[in-house]
Amino acid sequence: MPVVAIRELVEGRARAAREAGRTLAVATTRAKNEALGLMARGVEEEMVTILEANRVDVERARDQGHSRAFLDRLTLTERRIADVALGIRQVAALPDPVGATVRMERRPNGMEVGRVRAPIGVIGFIYESRPNVTADAAALCVKSGNAVVLRGGREALESNTVIAAILARGLEKAGLPAEAIGFIDVADREAVEVLLGLDRYVDLIVPRGGEAFIRMVAERATMPVLKHDKGLCHVFVDAGADLGIATEIALNAKAQRPSVCNAMETLLVHADIAAEFLPRAGARFRDAGVELRGCPRTRAVLPWAVPATDEDWATEYLDLVLAVRVVEGLDAAIAHIRAYGSGLAEAIVTQDYDRARRFVAEVDASCVLVNASTRLCDGHQFGMGAELGISTAKIHARGPIGVEELTTTKFVVLGSGQLRE
Amino acid sequence: MPVVAIRELVEGRARAAREAGRTLAVATTRAKNEALGLMARGVEEEMVTILEANRVDVERARDQGHSRAFLDRLTLTERRIADVALGIRQVAALPDPVGATVRMERRPNGMEVGRVRAPIGVIGFIYESRPNVTADAAALCVKSGNAVVLRGGREALESNTVIAAILARGLEKAGLPAEAIGFIDVADREAVEVLLGLDRYVDLIVPRGGEAFIRMVAERATMPVLKHDKGLCHVFVDAGADLGIATEIALNAKAQRPSVCNAMETLLVHADIAAEFLPRAGARFRDAGVELRGCPRTRAVLPWAVPATDEDWATEYLDLVLAVRVVEGLDAAIAHIRAYGSGLAEAIVTQDYDRARRFVAEVDASCVLVNASTRLCDGHQFGMGAELGISTAKIHARGPIGVEELTTTKFVVLGSGQLRE
Repeated sequence: MPVVAIRELVEGRARAAREAGRTLAVATTRAKNEALGLMARGVEEEMVTILEANRVDVERARDQGHSRAFLDRLTLTERRIADVALGIRQVAALPDPVGATVRMERRPNGMEVGRVRAPIGVIGFIYESRPNVTADAAALCVKSGNAVVLRGGREALESNTVIAAILARGLEKAGLPAEAIGFIDVADREAVEVLLGLDRYVDLIVPRGGEAFIRMVAERATMPVLKHDKGLCHVFVDAGADLGIATEIALNAKAQRPSVCNAMETLLVHADIAAEFLPRAGARFRDAGVELRGCPRTRAVLPWAVPATDEDWATEYLDLVLAVRVVEGLDAAIAHIRAYGSGLAEAIVTQDYDRARRFVAEVDASCVLVNASTRLCDGHQFGMGAELGISTAKIHARGPIGVEELTTTKFVVLGSGQLRE
Repeated sequence: MPVVAIRELVEGRARAAREAGRTLAVATTRAKNEALGLMARGVEEEMVTILEANRVDVERARDQGHSRAFLDRLTLTERRIADVALGIRQVAALPDPVGATVRMERRPNGMEVGRVRAPIGVIGFIYESRPNVTADAAALCVKSGNAVVLRGGREALESNTVIAAILARGLEKAGLPAEAIGFIDVADREAVEVLLGLDRYVDLIVPRGGEAFIRMVAERATMPVLKHDKGLCHVFVDAGADLGIATEIALNAKAQRPSVCNAMETLLVHADIAAEFLPRAGARFRDAGVELRGCPRTRAVLPWAVPATDEDWATEYLDLVLAVRVVEGLDAAIAHIRAYGSGLAEAIVTQDYDRARRFVAEVDASCVLVNASTRLCDGHQFGMGAELGISTAKIHARGPIGVEELTTTKFVVLGSGQLRE
C-alpha cells in the first residue's frame, strides 16, 4: 500500500478513536458491560468465520517456514475461541475503575479535594502474532473507558481483522461507537511509524515484542510508552530455606513455561546449602530436560553443568536453559540481581524473617516474591483479570497492566466560593 | 566549557546520583527527616553566603536588561530564605510515602499480593531562574527517597550552586550520601542535552519552562518526562450561579497572580445571565486594570471590551488580559474547553447539582473545580506540601507533583510455596 494511503488509514483510525473515546469515557458501567457481553457473544456466534480466517493466517505462516512454537501461538481452536469469550466476560465482571474516588478530604478553607479515576483516552497497543490478545486488549480498554487503536502481528492479520470487526459490532449493538475499537488492517511496517507520531490522538502506547522492537518504539514514540520489556528473573535460595519448597519453586519458575517473560533465567544459591540443595534440584532439572550453566562452585557439586560465562548472567534464554550461581549470602544475591536483573519479577526462598523483609525492600523490581514462583507475576494470578502486558516502566504502572492501570486520576475540588489568598 | 568536559561533569553527577539513590531508597524516615532538618538549618545559618551569591546573579541579570518581574523572581531576601527553610521543614513534616502498602489481599491459592510504594530512583529536574525552587525540589526528592540531579536557570547559577552545596552538606551530616543532591553547576546549554540522554542513570525528567522548551525536552529525552505544560484555564459561570461568588472567583482566578499557569485566561458566561453578570464583573475587572477581549455578545453588554479574535481563545496571556465569551450553556462551555483548554485547571461556578456533576465528569483536566478559584490548583493548597510542578501529563501523575507522585509501586507477593499451575 502506498505510504500516503497508510498514513491516511492510520490517522483516520486514530482520529475516530479520539472522538469515540470521549463517548466511552462517560459511558455507564452498565453500558460498557452490556457491550462486553455482546462482544463475547459475537465471538462465540462467529466462531466459524474466525476459524476460517485463522486457517488462512496459519497456512501462510507455515508456507513461510515459521517455527512450530510460532504456529502454535498463532493457531486458534474452538476451545481457544471459547476461552477468548470467557476472558471478555471475566473483564466485564471486574469492578469499573472509572469514577472511583481514590481519596477525598476537607481542607482548612472548607473545600473538599479528592482524586477521581478517569480513563486515559486513547491507547495504542502494538502486539505480537497471538490473535487471542486482540480481544483481551479491546475488553480491558472498553472496561476502563478508553478507546484503543490495535496493531497486531502481521502474521495474524486475517484473524485479527475478523475478530476486531466482531468486537466493534458488539460495541455498536450496545449503543457505543464502533470506532472506539480501531484496528489497523494493513500489514505494512510503515503503519507503526505513523501511529508513533500521532500524539495528538493517542495518549499512551503499550508495545509488546522483542527487545529491539521495544527500543525502537521508545525512541520514536511522541507519546508516553508503557514498555513491556524483557524478563531476566532470578530465584535466590537462602540458607535455611525449606529445600523441598525451594526445589518446587525453582522447577516451576524455570520449566512450567520457559518461553515467557516471568520465567526464571538464573538461580542463585546460598553457599551454605549449595552442597545439599544443588544435587536435589539438579536431578529434577535434568529430568525436566533443563540444561544447566553453572559457576565454578556450582560445577564443583554438579560436574555435568556446562561452565557459565559472564554472558550467561545477562541472557534471557526463554528456553530450557538455566544459569546457576552460588553466592555468599543475601547481599551478594541482591548485588547480582541489581547488576543483571531486568526489574520484572525476583523471588527469594527463605524461612528467615529479616532477610525476607530486606529482599522485599531492597530489590527494585515490578514484583518481588517471597516463597512463590516468579511465574505468578501475572494479571490473572493477581486477580486483575486479563493483562495488557507486564510493565517494567518505573512510572505510571509497574507489573501487570489491568483496567486500573489504564486509568489516570484527576483532582476534583468541591467548593463554596473559595479563593486563593 | 568544552563539550567533552560538560559531558563528563553531567554524567559524573548522574552516575553518582544513581549510586547515592540506592542508599536513600532504603533510608529510614527518621534519617531522611533528620537530613531535612539539617538542610533547613544550613540554609538559615548560611543566609549571608546565599545573599552574597544571589547579589552576583541579580546584578548580572540587571546588566543583561532582564525585566523587573524576572529580577523579582530571581531575588532572594532574608524573608524569602527563611521561607525556604520553612518549606523544607514542612516537607519533613509530611508522611513518608515510601513503604506504604497501598492495598494487599489474599488470593485463592493462599498467597498475599500487595502494592507497596517505592522511590522512583533518580529524578532529573530542569527549572527556571527561581533559586528557592532548588530547595523545594531537593526536599521533595529526599523525603520520597529519590536522588535528584538539578539543573536550574542559568541566571540563578551562583545562588543555586551555593544552596545546593548547603543542602548536600545537610544530607551528609545526617549520614546520607551528599551525591543524592546533584547540581549541574555550569550554565552551558549542552548540559541539558547530555542530561536528557542519560536514561541509564536518570529515571524521570521533570521540566519546567516555556512551551518550546517543554516540547524540546519531550522530544529529546530518552527517559519518561512528566511535563509541566502551559495553563490555559477557564472559569464557566453557569445560569443560576451565585453572581457574588462568581465575581469573586473570576477576579481571583485572573488577577490574584496573573503570571502563573493556574490563572484564568478565558471567562465563559452562560447567555441567560450575561446581561446581569457581565456589567458587575466587568466593573471589577476594569478597577483591577484587566483588559477584556470579548466575543460580539460580550461586547453588546460591555462595549468597552476589545473585540476578541479566534487567536484570543488559544492564548495564554499570563498577564492582566482576559478573553470573555458568552456561550449557550454547559455543552457549549465544555466544547469550548475541549477545543482550547490545556488540561490544567478548569472551574464551573454553579448552583445546579446535575451540571456540577456533569462538568466534573466530562471535563478532562488535571483539576476540575466547582465554585472555587483555579488558583487553588496547587500542592500547598491541596495539603501536599511543596510541589515540583503541576503535571498535565495523562499518565503517572496529573496535577500538583508532591512526594507521593515521586514514588512508584511494586507488587509484593508473600507466599508459602505457591506455584503456577
